[in-house]
Amino acid sequence: MLTSETQIRVRYAETDMMGFVYHAHYLPWFEIGRTELFKQVGISYKELEAQGFRLPVLEVSVKYLKPAYYDDLITVKTTLIEKPLLRFNLTYEIKRTDELLTTGSSMHAFIDKEGRPVRPPQWAADLISKALKET
Amino acid sequence: MLTSETQIRVRYAETDMMGFVYHAHYLPWFEIGRTELFKQVGISYKELEAQGFRLPVLEVSVKYLKPAYYDDLITVKTTLIEKPLLRFNLTYEIKRTDELLTTGSSMHAFIDKEGRPVRPPQWAADLISKALKET
Amino acid sequence: MLTSETQIRVRYAETDMMGFVYHAHYLPWFEIGRTELFKQVGISYKELEAQGFRLPVLEVSVKYLKPAYYDDLITVKTTLIEKPLLRFNLTYEIKRTDELLTTGSSMHAFIDKEGRPVRPPQWAADLISKALKET
Amino acid sequence: MLTSETQIRVRYAETDMMGFVYHAHYLPWFEIGRTELFKQVGISYKELEAQGFRLPVLEVSVKYLKPAYYDDLITVKTTLIEKPLLRFNLTYEIKRTDELLTTGSSMHAFIDKEGRPVRPPQWAADLISKALKET
Repeated sequence: MLTSETQIRVRYAETDMMGFVYHAHYLPWFEIGRTELFKQVGISYKELEAQGFRLPVLEVSVKYLKPAYYDDLITVKTTLIEKPLLRFNLTYEIKRTDELLTTGSSMHAFIDKEGRPVRPPQWAADLISKALKET
Repeated sequence: MLTSETQIRVRYAETDMMGFVYHAHYLPWFEIGRTELFKQVGISYKELEAQGFRLPVLEVSVKYLKPAYYDDLITVKTTLIEKPLLRFNLTYEIKRTDELLTTGSSMHAFIDKEGRPVRPPQWAADLISKALKET
Repeated sequence: MLTSETQIRVRYAETDMMGFVYHAHYLPWFEIGRTELFKQVGISYKELEAQGFRLPVLEVSVKYLKPAYYDDLITVKTTLIEKPLLRFNLTYEIKRTDELLTTGSSMHAFIDKEGRPVRPPQWAADLISKALKET
Repeated sequence: MLTSETQIRVRYAETDMMGFVYHAHYLPWFEIGRTELFKQVGISYKELEAQGFRLPVLEVSVKYLKPAYYDDLITVKTTLIEKPLLRFNLTYEIKRTDELLTTGSSMHAFIDKEGRPVRPPQWAADLISKALKET
């Protein structure tokens, strides 16, 4: 199991007229979380894309427990349970200090530039395997 | 069962560097869908808010089957299966002509301005009951 | 002088906690306006991109006179005064019925895929010249 | 003259199909810049709103010199030249290390909850005057 934590300051632009964060804006936060988790094991998503890999979102789900407000400092905790094969899942928890605001999950696939499903590049798979063993 | 269909032209702003629509932008489309479904039975969501009701999203899930591209004309089909009580569910299908691109669902609650769960206003509940019977 | 008008229904997602449309969301509306103006003379921006042209925004300015609210039906009026050469300017007016809400302008350049400034393709230049003469 | 600098990591969600940051997404960055400038002198914009003040954007303009890319670490430099009265101006520079990517400016007013122009609260005006004298 791999876990990473990132902090985000809620932007004014992310609120709506209900007075708190618009529900769609949690998805980019999840993405920041997974970018960070990959960076932590030595994988730059930008580099993956430069090598011709894409990681589109196949499924996403979110449970909104409590609202996040403008200027809140929130923490995105991202977890990868298993080694990514053709498809893999990530889970997310968003907290304000100790208060759990949102949970979610996403499923991804590796595809090439033409949109065909492919295995992850060996170097990236190795980095993740190594990190999974160490934890 | 209540169903509505709305058409949306994909905006350039909704794409990302992968070349198609960014996954978070489907959530505002779902919202346009449910606004339309409510309008169809005679309920203005704006009016509901003016009367002190809010309809926050409690849960949302999306399955991305095929990408939507810039300038595509897509159709959002929104379905309400049961009469809304304290909580209610909506499902969504997004199509480009006959091609199914995305499916999703959302769960909502009626709350008042202070965030407390409430029943929907009688006039709105009546309009939905009437529409559900007619279909 | 070429002019086009497009109607847009304000989305909930476009509001912020001030209770009306967040100022950045006018820029995608301007873009919808210019996409429409080009379509009106027979130019698909999507087709321009497919042929290797890009039309990045070099400058943009906006004056916010009155707020736009959720569910408003607004009209974007887009104007091209002169034939596009290497660079060209567009102006925008956003109205709710007869009420002027916002004015703006943008400057664009034609570039190729490598980011080098280029002249617009002949077929597109011809379509615009023709339309400018007819008005 | 007051100046603040904030660092932002470019999000995937902020790119578009041209491969770099969509032009509208610079406006939330400017907003992060001015939130930071206010915080630096001891003013929480959130607190201002809680006291019934609003700071809507009256005008904004942006010059896009070079694109910002996904995962870039950019710096927003925000400058307040004069003490805010009924209206005030801010200017912005966005850099990637030493490379200037974007410049911009915004004009704001203080309004109350009913949208009427008001003077800034005395405590905030004092904090800014003090900070302006010290620099």
